[in-house]
Formats: sequence, C-alpha cells, structure tokens
Amino acid sequence: MSFERKNIANMQGYVPGEQPKAHTVIKLNTNENPYPASPAVADALAKIRVEDLRRYPQAIAEDFRQIAADVHGVDAENIIPTNGGDELLRLALTTFVEVGDKIIVTQPTYSLYPVLAEVQNCILEEIPLRDDWSIPADFAESLIQSRAKMCILVNPHAPTGCLLPSAYIEKLAKSFEGVLVIDEAYVDFVDPKESYNCVPLIDSHENILILRTLSKGYALAGLRFGYGISNKSLANPIMFKTRDSYNTDHVSQILACAALQAQDHAQANWEKIRNSRSDLITALNELGLVTGASQTNFVLVQVPANHSAINISQALKDQNILVRHFRQPRLEDKLRISIGTEKENRALLSALRGVLQG
Amino acid sequence: MSFERKNIANMQGYVPGEQPKAHTVIKLNTNENPYPASPAVADALAKIRVEDLRRYPQAIAEDFRQIAADVHGVDAENIIPTNGGDELLRLALTTFVEVGDKIIVTQPTYSLYPVLAEVQNCILEEIPLRDDWSIPADFAESLIQSRAKMCILVNPHAPTGCLLPSAYIEKLAKSFEGVLVIDEAYVDFVDPKESYNCVPLIDSHENILILRTLSKGYALAGLRFGYGISNKSLANPIMFKTRDSYNTDHVSQILACAALQAQDHAQANWEKIRNSRSDLITALNELGLVTGASQTNFVLVQVPANHSAINISQALKDQNILVRHFRQPRLEDKLRISIGTEKENRALLSALRGVLQG
Repeated sequence: MSFERKNIANMQGYVPGEQPKAHTVIKLNTNENPYPASPAVADALAKIRVEDLRRYPQAIAEDFRQIAADVHGVDAENIIPTNGGDELLRLALTTFVEVGDKIIVTQPTYSLYPVLAEVQNCILEEIPLRDDWSIPADFAESLIQSRAKMCILVNPHAPTGCLLPSAYIEKLAKSFEGVLVIDEAYVDFVDPKESYNCVPLIDSHENILILRTLSKGYALAGLRFGYGISNKSLANPIMFKTRDSYNTDHVSQILACAALQAQDHAQANWEKIRNSRSDLITALNELGLVTGASQTNFVLVQVPANHSAINISQALKDQNILVRHFRQPRLEDKLRISIGTEKENRALLSALRGVLQG
Repeated sequence: MSFERKNIANMQGYVPGEQPKAHTVIKLNTNENPYPASPAVADALAKIRVEDLRRYPQAIAEDFRQIAADVHGVDAENIIPTNGGDELLRLALTTFVEVGDKIIVTQPTYSLYPVLAEVQNCILEEIPLRDDWSIPADFAESLIQSRAKMCILVNPHAPTGCLLPSAYIEKLAKSFEGVLVIDEAYVDFVDPKESYNCVPLIDSHENILILRTLSKGYALAGLRFGYGISNKSLANPIMFKTRDSYNTDHVSQILACAALQAQDHAQANWEKIRNSRSDLITALNELGLVTGASQTNFVLVQVPANHSAINISQALKDQNILVRHFRQPRLEDKLRISIGTEKENRALLSALRGVLQG
C-alpha cells in the first residue's frame, strides 16, 4: 500500500553525483573545492567539546548572522542561515509558492530545481537558453507574461559556467512581480574584473533572494551550511515560520563563522582556482574539448563529434577519475569537470589524452 | 509587499524554549540531558579533520543507517536519518499529507505539530486528553471516523510524561488507515519494566513511523540528529524523494554513529536520570507541587492553587533557574521541569521552597 501524496508517488527523486568512499579517487564530479578549508576552521573545530553539544544550538544562529552581515555589508536580519544551500531553495518554495503555482527556470539548470517543484506540487516552466547558453532576449518579458510566483536562476550558471551581469539581474527584479531567487553557489569563483555583486540590490528590491553556500568557495561541502541574503520581507517568514526550529547545528555554526571570518584565506583560494581554471580551459581546448569561458569552479566541455561523452566518462572512471555526465537534452555530448588541484588537473589531461587518442 | 503564501502569512511560528548563552544558568526548560555524551563521541569528534569536510557527506548516511539498524534489530532500509527529529516530522507531512488533508493530534501535545500543519496548510484536529492525561476510550474509533491521513502521537507524552503501552499503539495502527507517527523523542527514559517497544511493529504495520532523536537520550541536542524507523513503504519516499539530498552533515553522521555504538554509556545515563526523576518527584510532591508518574526526562507539575505558575517560573528565573511555562489551555497552572544533575535538582528544590514560602 502506498501512503504517498500523488505528486510524490509520481515523481523521481534527485540523484546526487557519485560520492565514492575511497580517497584515492580524483573526484571532479561534484564541484567540491580541491583544497581544504582555512586553518582557522581547523582551530575552531579543535576547540569544540562534546559538552557543548549537550544543549540546543542557537535557534537562529545569531552569531553567524552577524558575521555574514558584516562580510556582506548588510544587516543581520538580511541573513538566513540554512542546512546547506539546498535547504534555502526548499524553504523558498515552501514559503512563497502554492501548490499549482508556477515557477520559471532555464533549461538547462541545476537539476535539483525540478525535483523541488515536484515535491511542492507546483508547475515548472523551463525556458531554454540559446545555443551559446546566453539568456533569450525576451526572457524578462516571458517572466512578466508567465505570472509565475518565482523564478530561480543559478548565476553563475550551472552546468555551463556563464555569468549574467548584476545589472541584468536588477532589470529582471524590477519588472518581475514574483520572487527572484539568485542561486550564487559558485559566485566566489567569479573573476573580480566582472564587478559582479547582487547583494546591494536587496535594499531596493524586496523580491530578490540570494543563495550562498560554504560548500564550494569555503571547501565545506561536508558541513552542510548555506545562507540566504534578502530583504527582511523575504527573510522573516523563512526565519520565523517555515524553517525547522533548529535547522543548523552548533558545530556547523561555529565552523561557518570561522570560515567566513577567514576572508583572506578564502580569497587566495578562489584566485588559485581561477588561475587553474584558465590553464585547464586552454589545455582542454588544445585537446579538441571545446569549452567556453567559465566563472565557476567547473567547466562544461563538448566532446569531439567522433567520441561519446558517456564513454569518455566511463574510461576516466576506469582510471579512478570521476567527472559528471548528465543524461539530459543538450548535455548528452558534454561533460562537466570540476577544477581540481594542479596535480589532479594534470592527471585528468593525461588520462583524457589517452582516451581521445585510444 | 508580502510574497508569502496565504497560510504562511496567517500563521505564527514555533517559539522554542529560551536558550541563554550563559553557562551558569541551571537550564531545566528544554529537556536537554544534564550529562555530556559518551567519551566515545568525544574521541570521534577529536578525529575529524577539516579536510574531511571538503567533500560532500554520505548522501544517505549509510554507515549510520547500518549502525542504527543493528541497534534496533531492523534492516538499514528501515532507518531514515534526519537533521534532528523535527525534520522527520516535517518530512512526514511533506510526503504523506496533501494540502487540506486532516491530521490528528492530542491536546495537549508537542507544540511544534500545529505549526507544521499550518506550514503544510492541512487541517489539524486536536482530540483532548482526559483530565488525568489518559487517552479517551474512543480515540481509536475517532481516528477511524476522522478519515485523517496522519495521526501524530508523542509517546511517552510531552508535556505530561505519560506512556501509552506498545499494545495500544499496535491496536491503533491496525484500525487506522492513515500514517501513525509515534514521536519517541523521550523513549530512552522509559522504565525497562514497562517493556515498551514499538520497533518490532514496523514489520507487520507499514503505516507506523517511529521518530527517535539523539538530542535527549544521547545528550546531543546541539548536533541536530534524529532518525525514523519504519517499514520501507514509508522510508523509501522520504529517503529518495522528499528529503533534501544531503540532509545530514559529515560531523553529525560520525558523532551519531559513535553515540549509538556506546550503548552501555547511554543506558547507564538513562538509569541515572530515572533515579533522579524518582527522587525529584517525591521531593516536589512533598512541596505540594503535584505531579504524576513520568516516563521522560521531565516532569509536569501543578502549582498549589494559591500560587501562579508563571510567577513561580519568573521567580526561579530571577535565581538563574529556567523551567518551562506554556501559555496554553490546561497548562497555565503548570510548569514543565527537566531532570537536571543531582546538584541542579537540589538547587531547584531549594529555590522552589523559598518561592513557595516567600
């Protein structure tokens, strides 16, 4: 007998990228940071005692809220700490989207969004990106006409690595009447020359909800800590109504505070990854694996016409190198490859050379 | 402008018990365990390196599932690891209860249930317990007639401490056609003489979902780790469809495994608290604070008719002792007091003596 709601019974769940137990694997399939978090985070971890875990954590993570507010130049009440960025996405739907309401995403996009829409039993409308992955010229107009309650854009974009400028986000927020979620999971890897910064928009646009995570830029995917940045008209109902009452734990709050405070370490890490990204793109292109610019810690490469992406992925896996292949329209002939350490990137290139020539 | 769904805009959030930062407070208001977790948990914590947090955690916490399965004599697929027990409750509603469906709870009960029902926008029906907090004789019949999709019982009961026998739970599960959630947050403190054990029921009753948490019995409220135990017809849709894809983090998984494996330590802790509970009840009754039997790590006391519960609560707070008062029908003249260390219980009794005689 099934007790599931109909929409749940009919849906498929999200399939996360493979998480092998072996640490010898070169893991370039889920966009983890290749370098460990700051020594300041290690120090904070070493200071936690089991006795500290006896009591409930700070229910609203007020220490973290203040530290994040200081880093971003906003108020503590603009910060929404969550159990990973994924929780913020779910809470956005729970709080602002009724059953049967419409949500707009692009196609392709982060593959979790359609799953969250199915759980909430709302309607998902996918607007295809153009062939060069740029956003259609009439996207803002389509948003208005859709009467959607929410639009979720991952920016920089996954899985393509493209960035929409802040000015474009502002334009969208102005014309769109629903909640505009900007999933900035990869924003830490954007080249500073782009002058990308949507945070100041939250003051004048109360429909913008920005997602940040410590999983990528701060090398803490195992910690599950993310946060929202928004006007308090969006932040308050999530913080005080729909969020589980103690949604982030004591250890993750302490380490997240330490990670955000170690900005110098984090920024040096991002620069290192940007440099590796640039080198990797050049080398991949030389191998005939076409990839455009990326503002993230991964690249999406198109494999040569006489090769199959899924076969290359399997051949790499046989050599203990994991990359991500999506069985989705427009992505079948492509691979998403996370930026590794320089040594890992060299191993990847060497393996790819063998596979392509084999 | 409000972007909230109507049901969210109209609701009040859950108000957690006060969590003071000062560690000098005698904190008997949120049912935390008064003693720290096992030294084995401390050892496990000391071994975690920040480098381990770079990668995503086990998405389904398979190591924890196996350990919990071994402890309870079930299969790993019967275990649902969650970010605190509260997450399991939310997921139960998300997975099995449609907007507009009915949920049955008792009155009084854990004050989070009505909040979760409001978030899911379903109908909450409260069936009052009798004056002695026992369950009405026609409760099973009321459940059947209600055509509710779910019934949530906290057992042993909060905030009264009463226990329904496993045989009664089995009878309910047999006759009820919806999902029967048994919130066993406090089950670790039940006297073994009661021979209470609902876990074996999950094999033959696929509508039973048992909630467990490490917050109380394992002294890890700060960790946010709970789990469900159920037939896989309930477990699978939660595990693979509605749960956030990485809902529990690496640190909490490791510490939860260590805590569950240290069964001897945990059971000695529970016995100690049961003994303190028995002593505390005797002493409270001698002070004219009436309380019945309790199978939890708290007692619900009725204050003498010539005193006000809220005033006593405030007078204790002025002496740095926190207890819980609920501004709810039937609970206005009562206080819920967690079992502390023997020293804390003595301090509480001494302060109460002063307040009642003052």
